[in-house]
Amino acid sequence: MPGLDPSGDEVVLPPDESHHLARVLRLHAEDDLIVFDGLGRAWRARIAVSDHRRSTVRLGNALPPDTEPRVPIVIVQAVLKGEGMDTAVRDVTMAGASRIVPVIAERSQVRLASLERSRASQRWMRLAIASAKQCGRARLPIIDPPRGLVEWLADPFDGIRLLLAEPGASAGPPRGLRDVLPGRRSGAIACIIGPEGGWTVDECQSSLDAGCIAVSLGTMTLRADAAGLVALSLITFLTQEI
Amino acid sequence: MPGLDPSGDEVVLPPDESHHLARVLRLHAEDDLIVFDGLGRAWRARIAVSDHRRSTVRLGNALPPDTEPRVPIVIVQAVLKGEGMDTAVRDVTMAGASRIVPVIAERSQVRLASLERSRASQRWMRLAIASAKQCGRARLPIIDPPRGLVEWLADPFDGIRLLLAEPGASAGPPRGLRDVLPGRRSGAIACIIGPEGGWTVDECQSSLDAGCIAVSLGTMTLRADAAGLVALSLITFLTQEI
Repeated sequence: MPGLDPSGDEVVLPPDESHHLARVLRLHAEDDLIVFDGLGRAWRARIAVSDHRRSTVRLGNALPPDTEPRVPIVIVQAVLKGEGMDTAVRDVTMAGASRIVPVIAERSQVRLASLERSRASQRWMRLAIASAKQCGRARLPIIDPPRGLVEWLADPFDGIRLLLAEPGASAGPPRGLRDVLPGRRSGAIACIIGPEGGWTVDECQSSLDAGCIAVSLGTMTLRADAAGLVALSLITFLTQEI
Repeated sequence: MPGLDPSGDEVVLPPDESHHLARVLRLHAEDDLIVFDGLGRAWRARIAVSDHRRSTVRLGNALPPDTEPRVPIVIVQAVLKGEGMDTAVRDVTMAGASRIVPVIAERSQVRLASLERSRASQRWMRLAIASAKQCGRARLPIIDPPRGLVEWLADPFDGIRLLLAEPGASAGPPRGLRDVLPGRRSGAIACIIGPEGGWTVDECQSSLDAGCIAVSLGTMTLRADAAGLVALSLITFLTQEI
């Protein structure tokens, strides 16, 4: 529950969370649950009033805070069409992305204007909240407003930026994750995932010029909506071990 | 196209593939495409007749065969309810599973009889074919008929068997993948993925008694329908590097 203020004894849940609690989870007064604030904190809680418009809970003990990932991982995801982007947002939230940056690539089949019209950012945030709840993840990713890839590349970034690339797409063969990650003990890692049709040669070149490193995940050819989850899982696994 | 016989000059596509070619892909006579036999072989081909019931293609040069994965990975997947199992089959096919073994676990919300009634095995095979096509994977996984977990455990297995387990579920803390895999250069690896509610204590014990090793994927809590993809990607990554 983003925006939760734990200072009072009783917390009033907003309408959507009240609905979820009373109608979806069908919980009643005196039932126990765990409440998250989306920033990594969680409390044991007991329901005082279960009402689909205005439920209240009494907070109990705070749970140990979610461990901050050793290396924050940012997923820069070219916006996918249809449900592809929803899948990507849901899955990289589950796998622990610290931030999601939706970008428009040359081959994106979606335009910024239509994302704004359809309030895509709000939908992605709702999906991230639902996914974090389902997986018991106490920390929500930050979701940036969508922007062009080139704009994002022009911003400073404290860490390394990996461009997930097909062997043929980039200048020279992409490197393996293993060659890039060992020895890195601090700073964030951004992983940039392309649209359904992949990156253009220009985009690969712009990314390399901006200091990105082209990487591949081995021999697998992955669907665009699954690449973020796989890349994030591998990077998390490798950085937890270093 | 399973069952493809490359000995003749012209190959007649079965009705479902003819439909796919003529109506879904909207390809015409003289268009080029690549034809897979599902066993790892692929050919360049040119369409002779595009007809939604009976298309024919002329085979050209064989492409280099799909590289056999260094270590075949078997995904033993507790059958998930609803679309969860479809997602799992599609995604582990994409990521290169050599075999998929659907099993019924104690907490599975699906029964063998209903899987047989609904011809689930045929549906999974169709999904695997579609996924392999989409990802350009020339080799299809074998999909076993569904059976009980305990029956599968009783069969001999040439390789190691990993039980993906939550930290609390098994006898003793599960080991990390890294501790289990290094040094293994041959034999298959089976990874056993639980149902939505996880394994029972009895199932964990039976698996360990049968020689399985309980492993975890680190700190991530994954949805049941995503665990197979992540586990398979990590194992593939680790075994390709050893």
